[in-house]
Amino acid sequence: MSFELTILGSSSALPTSKRFTTAHLLNINERFFLIDCGEGVQIQLRKYHLSPAKINHIFISHMHGDHLFGLFGLLSSLGMMGRKADLNIYGPEKMEEMMSSHLNYFGPLPFSLIYHVPEHGKLIYEDSKIEVEAIDLLHRTQTFGYIFREKKKLLNIKKSKIEKYGIGVEDVVKIKKGDDYVSDDGKLISNSELTMKPWHSRSYAFISDSAFRASIADKVRGVDLLYHEATFLEKDRKLAKQTLHSTAKQAAEIAKRAAVDKLLIGHFSTRYKSDQLFMDEAMEVFENTVSVSDGDQFSIPLKRED
Amino acid sequence: MSFELTILGSSSALPTSKRFTTAHLLNINERFFLIDCGEGVQIQLRKYHLSPAKINHIFISHMHGDHLFGLFGLLSSLGMMGRKADLNIYGPEKMEEMMSSHLNYFGPLPFSLIYHVPEHGKLIYEDSKIEVEAIDLLHRTQTFGYIFREKKKLLNIKKSKIEKYGIGVEDVVKIKKGDDYVSDDGKLISNSELTMKPWHSRSYAFISDSAFRASIADKVRGVDLLYHEATFLEKDRKLAKQTLHSTAKQAAEIAKRAAVDKLLIGHFSTRYKSDQLFMDEAMEVFENTVSVSDGDQFSIPLKRED
Repeated sequence: MSFELTILGSSSALPTSKRFTTAHLLNINERFFLIDCGEGVQIQLRKYHLSPAKINHIFISHMHGDHLFGLFGLLSSLGMMGRKADLNIYGPEKMEEMMSSHLNYFGPLPFSLIYHVPEHGKLIYEDSKIEVEAIDLLHRTQTFGYIFREKKKLLNIKKSKIEKYGIGVEDVVKIKKGDDYVSDDGKLISNSELTMKPWHSRSYAFISDSAFRASIADKVRGVDLLYHEATFLEKDRKLAKQTLHSTAKQAAEIAKRAAVDKLLIGHFSTRYKSDQLFMDEAMEVFENTVSVSDGDQFSIPLKRED
Repeated sequence: MSFELTILGSSSALPTSKRFTTAHLLNINERFFLIDCGEGVQIQLRKYHLSPAKINHIFISHMHGDHLFGLFGLLSSLGMMGRKADLNIYGPEKMEEMMSSHLNYFGPLPFSLIYHVPEHGKLIYEDSKIEVEAIDLLHRTQTFGYIFREKKKLLNIKKSKIEKYGIGVEDVVKIKKGDDYVSDDGKLISNSELTMKPWHSRSYAFISDSAFRASIADKVRGVDLLYHEATFLEKDRKLAKQTLHSTAKQAAEIAKRAAVDKLLIGHFSTRYKSDQLFMDEAMEVFENTVSVSDGDQFSIPLKRED
């Protein structure tokens, strides 16, 4: 029952000797979501012992090279490794046309690419346990943030009570949804006696790249883990505004307004000497902030709802 | 007066946790030639403290992703770093069309790309000191090898003789080309008394990817350093033939026939467990063989001609 984020690349536009460009891998119960795909993502996956073959869904925030150029090598290698299963790509309108043009020279692939274009505030992915909402960001090209949430979970029934009252399978299903139970001898057993609170539904929001938009806070309200880009420091707030990026303080303001549990910041411009400058600025506003580095992993443990 | 090759990527089609895909950087007296451009080449350049900005010439062997996908990130980063100078790209016919299609989505760049299509046996690059010859290889798409040679160097005049006979600048130039000298008192001084043998003209040949072709040996005859791909072992010679690649033994046979000084082998298929298998096979035929790894550097020192 894992919910684990791995940072595959944490640099801004230019990679450094220690940081690849943006890519995150989110593992929700062995369902793997690749979020952005900077150059060398296939190398990073190998370095951190993560299997490229398990990825069926790739979410692209926007079509700038530092968030995307790893896609060409990754898809090509998946093809050489014999992949046959469809691969879903979520991203801007032009993705399909661009990839099709690229594959004119380097394709075809032995598997199908299925493209999905996000709509603000709509679910772009859904299965029985997980849903992903896309939101518009404010950058120099069409850009999306993605919010990954486990769906609301059912109540957990106490095993001891099943045995005690001899509850059948059909009734178990009803009780997990909140029903009370009538025992064989006609006694009403309240749901609260039979069940424990459900497991908390975990969530992760990925916001990169974007100028500060207060409305993002409404969208990511209460998520467990928020990644928000922090390209600049406050002293370069003008530059952030011009290039439609955020400062560390602005990222922290979003986290505070949204009352998230933990904030991750990254995508630091290489003009600054130390990550600590970003941390100092962000933590003044939102204390539970972590600056991300390649290879970092963040797990959200299972816990009962309050 | 350096002549130094750095291996930036040494894997075959799939990168591994230790090897990036093919890319070599050749530094001839601070003139930097990038040869093939596998994914992540800009990251490798940084890792090995080599400046991407100094590269003015990029030679591409063929349009397979593992030799090329690093070009997108490299060019994009050079643009962000403010490059204005033209960049020359040498490679297959389709390079220009492919790049132009790519830059429709990710360009434009703030500098010009100048394309050069190789012709077998012709010089594709030439300056006052260096020449580069392109040769056809035999692979599944149009593929070229490149031979980098310092031009024949002039005789070195002994400083003591210039002083002794008071030789003027114009005469120095003539003597370096082989002329004798007539001193102020009419005495003929033979060239051999005035000069030392010139410095040896150094050379490097890059052969990747290709099936075994005996004619390659004629083309690379006598080079100091030959890199020849060795994707397979002899036990998979059939597979090498089918995929138009070479075995370690075949690479060594080319080196032996061509009487090169040193052979470098790489591009090993990831199906084999140890590099030593390739070395054992090659060294039976050609002893001075080295298997390359990312970060390896090979310098050819200056020495006098025999």
